[in-house]
Amino acid sequence: MNFQINKDVLLNNLIVAQKALSNKTPNPALQGIKIEVFKDHLVIITSNSDIAIKLNVKDSSLDVKEEGSALIPGKYFIEIIRKLDALKCNLSIVADNMLRIEADRSDITLNMMDLEDYPELEFSEKIKSVKVNVRTLKTIIRQTAFATSSIENRPILTGVNFKIDANKLTAIATDSYRLSQKEIELQDTYEPMDIIIPGRSLEELTKILENNNEVVELHFDNSKILFKYGNIKFQSRLLEGNYPETSRLIPTELPIRIKFNKDSLATAIERASLLSSRDGNNAIVKLSVRPDNVIEITSNSPEIGKVLEEVYPVDQIVGSPIKIAFSSKYMMDALKIFNSTEITVNFTGEIRPFIIKGEYDPEMLQLILPVRTE
Amino acid sequence: MNFQINKDVLLNNLIVAQKALSNKTPNPALQGIKIEVFKDHLVIITSNSDIAIKLNVKDSSLDVKEEGSALIPGKYFIEIIRKLDALKCNLSIVADNMLRIEADRSDITLNMMDLEDYPELEFSEKIKSVKVNVRTLKTIIRQTAFATSSIENRPILTGVNFKIDANKLTAIATDSYRLSQKEIELQDTYEPMDIIIPGRSLEELTKILENNNEVVELHFDNSKILFKYGNIKFQSRLLEGNYPETSRLIPTELPIRIKFNKDSLATAIERASLLSSRDGNNAIVKLSVRPDNVIEITSNSPEIGKVLEEVYPVDQIVGSPIKIAFSSKYMMDALKIFNSTEITVNFTGEIRPFIIKGEYDPEMLQLILPVRTE
Repeated sequence: MNFQINKDVLLNNLIVAQKALSNKTPNPALQGIKIEVFKDHLVIITSNSDIAIKLNVKDSSLDVKEEGSALIPGKYFIEIIRKLDALKCNLSIVADNMLRIEADRSDITLNMMDLEDYPELEFSEKIKSVKVNVRTLKTIIRQTAFATSSIENRPILTGVNFKIDANKLTAIATDSYRLSQKEIELQDTYEPMDIIIPGRSLEELTKILENNNEVVELHFDNSKILFKYGNIKFQSRLLEGNYPETSRLIPTELPIRIKFNKDSLATAIERASLLSSRDGNNAIVKLSVRPDNVIEITSNSPEIGKVLEEVYPVDQIVGSPIKIAFSSKYMMDALKIFNSTEITVNFTGEIRPFIIKGEYDPEMLQLILPVRTE
Repeated sequence: MNFQINKDVLLNNLIVAQKALSNKTPNPALQGIKIEVFKDHLVIITSNSDIAIKLNVKDSSLDVKEEGSALIPGKYFIEIIRKLDALKCNLSIVADNMLRIEADRSDITLNMMDLEDYPELEFSEKIKSVKVNVRTLKTIIRQTAFATSSIENRPILTGVNFKIDANKLTAIATDSYRLSQKEIELQDTYEPMDIIIPGRSLEELTKILENNNEVVELHFDNSKILFKYGNIKFQSRLLEGNYPETSRLIPTELPIRIKFNKDSLATAIERASLLSSRDGNNAIVKLSVRPDNVIEITSNSPEIGKVLEEVYPVDQIVGSPIKIAFSSKYMMDALKIFNSTEITVNFTGEIRPFIIKGEYDPEMLQLILPVRTE
């Protein structure tokens, strides 16, 4: 193996590959980056137990003198390439399974890892695939993945449920205390699909997708999904099991409706959360409708103090007055992802889930379970 | 106590006061911020075991309805004021020793602490004081405090030694492996002084000094120093004991001199440090002069690999070839604080301290002890 390449081209690809690089792993080979050198392109592969990335690097600066492949200690390799001052670098295998990196006045040799130890990875594309606009996919992930559970005792809730029915894609995430649901219309019509993608995989994926109008192809079977985007193949395992039927959680009658300016509501809740009693890590705040139709956000910690915030609704309040308590974090998480300046909170009753909707966020629904207070 | 003030004026002063606020302390009263309200100004006081801050707040927005004083839980108070949306806020004492904060649509009450528990602090100015330009003082601190020891077993080395002789101020810091020394000329002539200021106090001080050409007054006795700057009084304890006589550490004959471009040398050392053997936390790199007068920076870690960097000196090398090993961190710390593009490294011998000087850094000297390698 012996090739020269533009340093920044190599670095930018390594930064993408790093997303699937293992730091701690039962299999030390996965701390390595696998590089395969062909006549006119490189292949860079990384993998951990959840995701695997395969990059196809073609660049006019690539000059291959000798084909071959190598398994390179990932952390050191990326740090070295990052710190090089040079425009180009030359990578070659020298005696005793060492990688030599020559760049300008730097001459670095790095002990390599044993290529035999690296697992055989399959990045399998299917003939049929679902096509989604990059920007749309990023939005779906941003608006749902935050609501997955981070606790591993119900593993299925650490994933986002993706369902396709004809040309409708629905993504749902819930940690059983809140729920985020987003629907979009696809350009084509597909056969039904129902899979659960780990939330963390989606968050890594979203970091390497740029904000453009290109297309991501989704290829999947029962255990894996492959996202194909530009020269990147990003593969994730799927979660096994049946995702809970969430539709019955969502109230169909919503007799009480209050429209808020999103930022006014968010900053009032943020201030109230400073001095509120805690349920685990969650600061609990109360919302109540005063007879004069002003909304009060209150909190109270006997040791520290209390907060009373007045918020004026944007519109006439629909329905009877209500008093309800909820986690300020869940509420702020939900508000943050709306694009709308004005949002509507829809209540059913004091101990029933409530729903947030935004005028400019079609087909997105946020649901939060209230907290019982005596 | 009852007054109104512009929220940002209050916040900016609280952010300065926060520098001396205790988080963990044997005396819980020191987690509080003391506020004294007078007819036309406020006094804000904070203190921990090392430093104390006293702010005199006069502002056209201040409207005092009732004088008085209070001890307010610091962390919560600052967070609340920071999060307020309002232009102005009103602070008053209400029933049961509570502080009421009213601002726009926010109404917050905070349990106060017992003012009786707060220690009596003296911020004593002397008739005679040393005057230093703010920018100069910040430069002195930046160029010396980093070289203090962070290990507490020789407490005296955690401080910076400030000495005045007539109109010459010398600041010295050393952790016994490296030394940084800076001399400046003062505008006036003073009586001799020789004190040791804790490095951490100086680092907190430097955060609240702006970059301007105003004057800081230094008032001190045997145990304390008071920095007076604008409306701020910043007081620090002094370290007791005799600072080591460092002048005999500094070689007087420097037969070997190499002039470098600072950035070329720094980046070469940074790359070499990636794959070097470690002495504690310090990555050790070697510097040697090749017969062709090129400088080699090398490092070697048997498990990981090795680096060879070539650096071209800016000028003719003076003296005989040398091989020397040193901590890359100490070298990079030292290089970072030079304003000069070109610096000269002056060697005496392979196991003798070496000295770095910069053309545009008059009266600053950096000394580093080499590391013995077999």
